[in-house]
Amino acid sequence: MTHTAFAQRLIDAVGVDSVLTATDDIAPWLADWRGMYRGNAQAVVRPRTTEDVAKILALCQSTGTPVVPRGGNTGLCGGATPDASAQNVVLSLDRMNAVRSLDTIANTMVAEAGCILEDLQRAARDANRLLPLSLAAEGSCQLGGNLATNAGGVNVVRYGMTRELVLGVEAVLPNGEILHGLRTLRKDNTGYDLKQLLIGSEGTLGVITAAALRLHAPTPVRQVVIAAVGSPRQALALYELLFAECGPRMQAFEFFTGECVDLVIANVPGVRAPFADRHPGYVLIELADTANEAALAALLERVIETAIERDLCADAVVSSTLGQLEAMWKLREEISEAQRADGPHLKHDVSLPIEAIPDFMASAEARVRRVCPQVRPFIFGHFGDGNLHYNLSRPAGEAPDFMTKHGEAITAEVLDEVARHGGSISAEHGIGQLKRSYFAKYKSPLELRLMREIKAVFDPAGIMNPGKLL
Amino acid sequence: MTHTAFAQRLIDAVGVDSVLTATDDIAPWLADWRGMYRGNAQAVVRPRTTEDVAKILALCQSTGTPVVPRGGNTGLCGGATPDASAQNVVLSLDRMNAVRSLDTIANTMVAEAGCILEDLQRAARDANRLLPLSLAAEGSCQLGGNLATNAGGVNVVRYGMTRELVLGVEAVLPNGEILHGLRTLRKDNTGYDLKQLLIGSEGTLGVITAAALRLHAPTPVRQVVIAAVGSPRQALALYELLFAECGPRMQAFEFFTGECVDLVIANVPGVRAPFADRHPGYVLIELADTANEAALAALLERVIETAIERDLCADAVVSSTLGQLEAMWKLREEISEAQRADGPHLKHDVSLPIEAIPDFMASAEARVRRVCPQVRPFIFGHFGDGNLHYNLSRPAGEAPDFMTKHGEAITAEVLDEVARHGGSISAEHGIGQLKRSYFAKYKSPLELRLMREIKAVFDPAGIMNPGKLL
Repeated sequence: MTHTAFAQRLIDAVGVDSVLTATDDIAPWLADWRGMYRGNAQAVVRPRTTEDVAKILALCQSTGTPVVPRGGNTGLCGGATPDASAQNVVLSLDRMNAVRSLDTIANTMVAEAGCILEDLQRAARDANRLLPLSLAAEGSCQLGGNLATNAGGVNVVRYGMTRELVLGVEAVLPNGEILHGLRTLRKDNTGYDLKQLLIGSEGTLGVITAAALRLHAPTPVRQVVIAAVGSPRQALALYELLFAECGPRMQAFEFFTGECVDLVIANVPGVRAPFADRHPGYVLIELADTANEAALAALLERVIETAIERDLCADAVVSSTLGQLEAMWKLREEISEAQRADGPHLKHDVSLPIEAIPDFMASAEARVRRVCPQVRPFIFGHFGDGNLHYNLSRPAGEAPDFMTKHGEAITAEVLDEVARHGGSISAEHGIGQLKRSYFAKYKSPLELRLMREIKAVFDPAGIMNPGKLL
Repeated sequence: MTHTAFAQRLIDAVGVDSVLTATDDIAPWLADWRGMYRGNAQAVVRPRTTEDVAKILALCQSTGTPVVPRGGNTGLCGGATPDASAQNVVLSLDRMNAVRSLDTIANTMVAEAGCILEDLQRAARDANRLLPLSLAAEGSCQLGGNLATNAGGVNVVRYGMTRELVLGVEAVLPNGEILHGLRTLRKDNTGYDLKQLLIGSEGTLGVITAAALRLHAPTPVRQVVIAAVGSPRQALALYELLFAECGPRMQAFEFFTGECVDLVIANVPGVRAPFADRHPGYVLIELADTANEAALAALLERVIETAIERDLCADAVVSSTLGQLEAMWKLREEISEAQRADGPHLKHDVSLPIEAIPDFMASAEARVRRVCPQVRPFIFGHFGDGNLHYNLSRPAGEAPDFMTKHGEAITAEVLDEVARHGGSISAEHGIGQLKRSYFAKYKSPLELRLMREIKAVFDPAGIMNPGKLL
């Protein structure tokens, strides 16, 4: 027996097959998938039921044992990786992966925290419904992590963040009490909306074990257009027109600079430039509807005609086949891969008031260039919801470790400009360990105090995910 | 001088023209509009700025003076009426009624708490945008009250409750600190979402002074249909079809029983039955879109044909003119007035998981009839979001005060059935004074404890709206 006396108590509580303690067994649970963070733990527990989660947490609280909840380990901020303490218990929800119910009248799905997002999307689709939460990690991320981080993704412009898809949650508090909040109601004005605190709390208040989600109507009819723009400001004017004319059909409104397209064409085989001429910027717009492909195509054609007449874009190409549609998305989706192929670089996941994006882009670039004149910005993102991936690659000819040396100084400039424009230093990835110092810097003292006191209400012993967020 | 020494301190802080103390001056502020509740106060303050609100609250907290925030006084639960204490200060936001900004690129509006909802709807419309919050009291209710109660209304099935329209709030805490949270961001994952606590808190945590709201695309193209159904279960099957086929175009899905239509025809001049035959139930569906009336009409026609083929409704009539459309809505909207004309009655604003509505209607009626066999139910509501107005009128031939005597026993049966079906005892009106005992009965001890401890974080002196909600 190599495990601690406390691990034996966990085994006594939830069974030996739910507790890992051998060094080799727990090693895979101690690091994040990118290898940026590594920690320590005395045990990994993998409960099968909400009641088991309650037993584990009560035991941890009574002994002051820190607990690190863990979903699919796809986070980008180290939020699910334990710190260096050998006392940590990693609590994995992966075995709680049942869809408890799916209702096509109420349009709700009740699913457990360990469900993989792609499986839930499929379950909805099989019932002729849409679970619109969609992000790059959907093949391995888990619902519990999506809720704990209020995940965003590509459909936020239409359907909102994870928070907007949640009708109720079941959660366990650190003292082992179960919050039975799996309501499927659209309207329920009975006191403070406690689930809103748990959503986005990054495992610092308790453990979400299941959620009731809203489903939407499927939108099988799709149209995609790529438009060439002369500037971010022109892209905004185009957004304004599309929003008014197409309303809820607008499923995506993505922006990327000419430099991004150059980079993709140079680094990813088989991708072609969208137009004969090179343009300063590009916008990819997807419209989607429940039915009537001809009407959607006619609407898009009419709007693009108007846009060209009003000089809101220089040129545009509409997908007429599914192959063309996929090729257009590929151009956008390969930007990250192309930048990776180009070498180490600096990422910033920020959001801005949409109308401030052009000013921000100009002033942030000026500040960054004062620190590093030859840096190469590759800026793209979900323009329609104000979310920019403000990424920077090293100057041509510099060594690959350039950003390791200069990254912190550049990031300080970028995030300061974000704050100055009323933006957010973390649009969709959360805080975790990565952005904790910037979080403490840019939140007001009042907000920080309220958050700490709320934390103390839920977790008076301070055992939940120490070293993350607050 | 008739006012108290404390009132003099208020005058010193915010100016004599912002403080009312004479008995006649404050009398109109001491009762709710229906005359169900009446209280007392030493002063009414009407600040013009957020800074004045901060001064007032700091002064009240330092002296333990209770504060009752007040909007347009259109609430139905006594939430804005002071209790009997002569120490109360009523804080009216009515002078803070500026639209601080309106942006048609970001699709946001920043407005102060005292703005009347109808004025905000108009401001949005003038800018070719839609503020979809819409309810009967919109001509006099104020934004601050809408936020404090998380108001619902007729468009929830499409756009959600007030909460879903709020991007940020500015609020003053009881100690006078200002929470500067007027962010206009769609994506902002930086810690606990504090604004969610203030929304729906009924003035018990602090005072919301302004909010950043999301605007939607205007939907000038409308189609309305009334369908006859044989049962609530058939109405649900019809809802399921409409949801899948029409998706986000479904703006309203209202249900009312044949008894409701009989009552309207008997009591409201100029309203005609929708069909030659009388039916057990009726559904009113509104579709709305940004453009293309012909496509919307064709969609509705196709879906109704399918519904009749599949026996999901017995008959249907579609509006072909604006006059017909308005007449259809009148039939639905006059139910409350018809019931009022019929005499005193009992109202319940409840919500249910949508799929549970037919079972609830059957079992609630059985329980109600055990208490009072001859009671007359008039049931209608926003079926599409699970919200039922479960109203009951006295048996034929009984005296008008019948419900005063028997109402409490009947309400206990109705709300118990709501709770048994996983519903909410207050769908959109909140708790206030009216439903406080039922709130304490049906919320779990854990939820009540968390709410009380959160209240203590925001309002440690307990001055905010005493006797309401918690």
